[in-house]
Amino acid sequence: MSNSYGKLFRITTFGESHGLSVGVVVDGCPAGLEITAEEIQRELERRRPGQSNITTQRKEEDEIIILSGLYENKTTGTPIAMMVNNKNQAGKDYSHLEHAFRPSHADYTYTTKYGLRDHRGGGRSSARETLARVAAGAIANKYLKQQNIQIASYVSAVGPIKLKEGYEALDLNLIDSNKIRCPEPTTAEAMIKLVEETRKNRDTVGGVITCVIKGVPVGLGEPAFDKLHAELGKAMLSINAVKGFEYGSGFEGTKMFGSEHNDEFYTDENGKIRTRTNHSGGIQGGISNGEDIYFKVAFKPVATILQPQTSINDAGETITLEGKGRHDPCVLPRAVPIVDAMAALVLIDFLMRQKAIQ
Amino acid sequence: MSNSYGKLFRITTFGESHGLSVGVVVDGCPAGLEITAEEIQRELERRRPGQSNITTQRKEEDEIIILSGLYENKTTGTPIAMMVNNKNQAGKDYSHLEHAFRPSHADYTYTTKYGLRDHRGGGRSSARETLARVAAGAIANKYLKQQNIQIASYVSAVGPIKLKEGYEALDLNLIDSNKIRCPEPTTAEAMIKLVEETRKNRDTVGGVITCVIKGVPVGLGEPAFDKLHAELGKAMLSINAVKGFEYGSGFEGTKMFGSEHNDEFYTDENGKIRTRTNHSGGIQGGISNGEDIYFKVAFKPVATILQPQTSINDAGETITLEGKGRHDPCVLPRAVPIVDAMAALVLIDFLMRQKAIQ
Amino acid sequence: MSNSYGKLFRITTFGESHGLSVGVVVDGCPAGLEITAEEIQRELERRRPGQSNITTQRKEEDEIIILSGLYENKTTGTPIAMMVNNKNQAGKDYSHLEHAFRPSHADYTYTTKYGLRDHRGGGRSSARETLARVAAGAIANKYLKQQNIQIASYVSAVGPIKLKEGYEALDLNLIDSNKIRCPEPTTAEAMIKLVEETRKNRDTVGGVITCVIKGVPVGLGEPAFDKLHAELGKAMLSINAVKGFEYGSGFEGTKMFGSEHNDEFYTDENGKIRTRTNHSGGIQGGISNGEDIYFKVAFKPVATILQPQTSINDAGETITLEGKGRHDPCVLPRAVPIVDAMAALVLIDFLMRQKAIQ
Amino acid sequence: MSNSYGKLFRITTFGESHGLSVGVVVDGCPAGLEITAEEIQRELERRRPGQSNITTQRKEEDEIIILSGLYENKTTGTPIAMMVNNKNQAGKDYSHLEHAFRPSHADYTYTTKYGLRDHRGGGRSSARETLARVAAGAIANKYLKQQNIQIASYVSAVGPIKLKEGYEALDLNLIDSNKIRCPEPTTAEAMIKLVEETRKNRDTVGGVITCVIKGVPVGLGEPAFDKLHAELGKAMLSINAVKGFEYGSGFEGTKMFGSEHNDEFYTDENGKIRTRTNHSGGIQGGISNGEDIYFKVAFKPVATILQPQTSINDAGETITLEGKGRHDPCVLPRAVPIVDAMAALVLIDFLMRQKAIQ
Repeated sequence: MSNSYGKLFRITTFGESHGLSVGVVVDGCPAGLEITAEEIQRELERRRPGQSNITTQRKEEDEIIILSGLYENKTTGTPIAMMVNNKNQAGKDYSHLEHAFRPSHADYTYTTKYGLRDHRGGGRSSARETLARVAAGAIANKYLKQQNIQIASYVSAVGPIKLKEGYEALDLNLIDSNKIRCPEPTTAEAMIKLVEETRKNRDTVGGVITCVIKGVPVGLGEPAFDKLHAELGKAMLSINAVKGFEYGSGFEGTKMFGSEHNDEFYTDENGKIRTRTNHSGGIQGGISNGEDIYFKVAFKPVATILQPQTSINDAGETITLEGKGRHDPCVLPRAVPIVDAMAALVLIDFLMRQKAIQ
Repeated sequence: MSNSYGKLFRITTFGESHGLSVGVVVDGCPAGLEITAEEIQRELERRRPGQSNITTQRKEEDEIIILSGLYENKTTGTPIAMMVNNKNQAGKDYSHLEHAFRPSHADYTYTTKYGLRDHRGGGRSSARETLARVAAGAIANKYLKQQNIQIASYVSAVGPIKLKEGYEALDLNLIDSNKIRCPEPTTAEAMIKLVEETRKNRDTVGGVITCVIKGVPVGLGEPAFDKLHAELGKAMLSINAVKGFEYGSGFEGTKMFGSEHNDEFYTDENGKIRTRTNHSGGIQGGISNGEDIYFKVAFKPVATILQPQTSINDAGETITLEGKGRHDPCVLPRAVPIVDAMAALVLIDFLMRQKAIQ
Repeated sequence: MSNSYGKLFRITTFGESHGLSVGVVVDGCPAGLEITAEEIQRELERRRPGQSNITTQRKEEDEIIILSGLYENKTTGTPIAMMVNNKNQAGKDYSHLEHAFRPSHADYTYTTKYGLRDHRGGGRSSARETLARVAAGAIANKYLKQQNIQIASYVSAVGPIKLKEGYEALDLNLIDSNKIRCPEPTTAEAMIKLVEETRKNRDTVGGVITCVIKGVPVGLGEPAFDKLHAELGKAMLSINAVKGFEYGSGFEGTKMFGSEHNDEFYTDENGKIRTRTNHSGGIQGGISNGEDIYFKVAFKPVATILQPQTSINDAGETITLEGKGRHDPCVLPRAVPIVDAMAALVLIDFLMRQKAIQ
Repeated sequence: MSNSYGKLFRITTFGESHGLSVGVVVDGCPAGLEITAEEIQRELERRRPGQSNITTQRKEEDEIIILSGLYENKTTGTPIAMMVNNKNQAGKDYSHLEHAFRPSHADYTYTTKYGLRDHRGGGRSSARETLARVAAGAIANKYLKQQNIQIASYVSAVGPIKLKEGYEALDLNLIDSNKIRCPEPTTAEAMIKLVEETRKNRDTVGGVITCVIKGVPVGLGEPAFDKLHAELGKAMLSINAVKGFEYGSGFEGTKMFGSEHNDEFYTDENGKIRTRTNHSGGIQGGISNGEDIYFKVAFKPVATILQPQTSINDAGETITLEGKGRHDPCVLPRAVPIVDAMAALVLIDFLMRQKAIQ
């Protein structure tokens, strides 16, 4: 198990989906940052189940409790522990899953790795763990905003429906204006329709989240190994259901010639060094170059579907499973704040690492 | 700077392209592993410049020198330091690059981050650093082979030319049978032709490397943050020129429904638990499930092109640059052993971490 | 701030003395270890305030709450979060300390380092943080006992009163038989008398704890830097009020000649390799040699005394302070379980690191 | 093996006493620091064998070779690799030691831990490893001096001969004025005489080094675990032959009452906050308070003595050993620059960590 992330701004998450609580300890946050429980709660609301008819209808309040590290709404430099109590851990019956290995879930790998597992609702492999990241990310994001660094993630594809526009053509203020979190209304509508149909079909669907980061100063990133995009990639790939990461020109860029792909430098009217194109995605040699950073994150369809599936149990016997209860037909809208949070955690860490060498 | 990689099997690389030498210290390698300098040299040969007419024609011998950690061709458990001396560091004149910021290179970001840089041929940002990884990876790979873990990487796309077959349909023994390192002869030929044309056009072209890992036991990977694929992603994204990473169904998988994407479990005739499909890419919940692991790595076209380009110098003035000397028109064939090496480094580390908790 | 300890068995502590709670996340504990809340509580009781008339008379129940990581009294391999709620955080008035820098406390250094601090009762610098270590250490210790590794710490000096016997001459089962935790009854009595007098004088007194570890296999420790005794030293020195650490012959050994100090090897009647003397303290070259490990930890007198003291406030003005409330006249008896815990945390980590390379 | 030290200014050492070379990679050094090979060599000279008649008479030139990371005598922010070639690794015959376990050496523990070892002259456990630390420490020290932080170590005891004066009463400029490195001439003479006698007796003797650090700003140190003194302790205890560490009042402080031990704060004539006494050793709550930092390091007598000793071989059979060649009768004078180096490495790391959170 490795439940910590970050070198200087370091989070450690804990908690199973059906244990007492899920939480996080943030170690290394600079002292004196003003932040309230409400600000953290606001980000949790964006991740919360039951926020619309295209997410799971489970009702969880997910109220943040701050255990330490804040004094009179200021960080004190000491570890910030926060948690959310699980409301209904006792209620439900999970005995039908005790011995089952659900397809494309982590039941089989956890059981084999650890010799046992808490089978209730995914245990530690549940995406409920990500609420701890969102809480920590809210603190990081508050710090970044004070440095004029702006992170904005949005849903750019659901199944085959794909936003045609690049991020420059979009109004990123519209991200939260619809329940799928796609800032282009027409595409958003089509996406929502697809998710609703998918839900009716008792199925699930995947998609892509695009993240844009503006205002990053030149110089963040620590090659050779902790290149800025390498760390962003790891952070994104550590989110449940993520299958791929690309930044700047990404996989499309592999089809280009160098003469097309190279980003020409110039000095703008304010004397600032810029590039005319941004195939580099704001990162060159693993270090931010001051242009917008942008990347894409691929999410597979949720593994729990409300259809009968053939699988096996831990005795190796064939069984038939059928998902019960309330599940997300599409994880994308609720994953947007998670991508925001992980991006913030990566950036604050590199900001602090950069300060250390100056 | 962060020039170390790995938690238990930990490498630290050093060296600029035009300093005295480039090397690596491997710390944490289990004692008693038999390995010779020749075995390490063999992998370096696959990365060496000048190996064919579609790579750079620079002649570098890249002879490995083992400074410590081996005694009578066995690892002793102490740090293994290895290096390659740079042959022609004194020879060439790099003064025309002293103040230039080459497009899509790291000149501008390094200079801004560190306040100065060794401008000779890329300095630390040169891909020459990766030979240190290949040397370390050769040791890791020797260990893995003794555990029956087999890593095979190959070029699956060059520019728009793409292998149609998945890895299961290919004979991976043919990877080194041609100079582009694509195991399907007809596609390989087309790729080689494209690289040759690109070189004649004084241009460069990108592509994709696919990596397949067979024989990985169930249980490797350390969620929540050090998921096996997250660490593979970081390792790959830390290689020069990489723009994207996807595993299993990857970005294509986002277009699928859950009912299509889920991998059904079954028990095979030997009583082994398997999945009928492998959209999961051998990893579920961040932990290996015993199926083949496979992933793709996107490489952008090399930034150095032998054409005049407009750029600026460190005074912000417009200049015209033209690449000189011998450069790779396509980095892909020489990047294959680097992908092999980084995959080996990730796997040996997780193998050791898994042993620790048993 | 660095609130984590350990490489593979890693703890992260959180909480201020007067915040909501103090707790710990244990990451990396092997799965399948049986442990109950009662076993952890038992160790907390040894550290608890108010346990006798020679410790502080504060009443704190310190009841452990296990938030995650255990399922049906077995560790699951997931992070184990535990906490103790602070009972009386709202009650008392600490306003007289808001601006004061108490002598030999951390008020001044925390305020200067972080720009602000939670002034209530020591905040994060309070020894209350160590209860988190004791809870985590109880888990580590359970694991070690199953490997036949036995840790026993005891008070070997209080002020000038010093145990004459070495640990070999003592019955370590008697440690908890008296309230000072010295296993030799006559010396214990003298120590207790001194502490009682010290308390009457409204003063405090320091002392030494000796720790003995039996049953450690040959081979634990990771030179060159993570030598077994170096890590033990760091762990002990990280405990509040500790001023020194020595192992084996320690500072006395510096007065010896090599011919006296060297430990002669021999093979015992069971064919086991042993040393005739043990000036090495069970560690040679930073690695355990199978002999008993023993070391001493120096504790200064508690800084809070119930006498008027001259100091300054955060405006630099001279003030007079007088400790109020209930404080420990001697921290030694309550520090014994903390030394036990830290020793256990060091050992389990090295055991796991050793497994990783085998 | 754990051959790296430091979190942000991180060194990795490599090399056996009789391999090709011993060296170090320094990762994380801020760019732009001016330093020459000569400055590094100067510190190595203080550690060099054969520097006087009271050290080993082995002749080793120990000439530093800088492989990377410096450009025109300035650090570039990239890893600084340095090494010293071993001159006589081929020459001598070590076959008599191939199977022997020398008393109080690491032969037995290394062989058991790793299953094999390079038996020539101590291999990796040789104190020759420390030259790598001295080279790295020279760079750290250059940086610290520019921040007005001054580190001075000296021999304060050899066997039973002990400096009576505290560091405040000494002229620390005299440290290098005699071959034992004790700044008080009369005591130095007595120490030298004792070492010379010890050498004649074919024996060895231990001692104590005191280190004083002036000019440290308030605020360095990262509690709860990386307290400044805890990290200093670990660093010192990682040096070969070290058996103990104490700072400030140390073990003597355990005998004091709180009313004696507490350091009273006052504001001096310049408005600076000071303490009247300094039992705290310049560190309170694990954080520097601006007073002088001072600590003591205990060194055992060197294990190699030129007398016959009974021991066993790796078959468990009794053998007689007699040290051959040239060895140090007292390691103390050559250990002074090692203590300086490790202190510098600890401080630069905390300076950088402090910058990161500001």
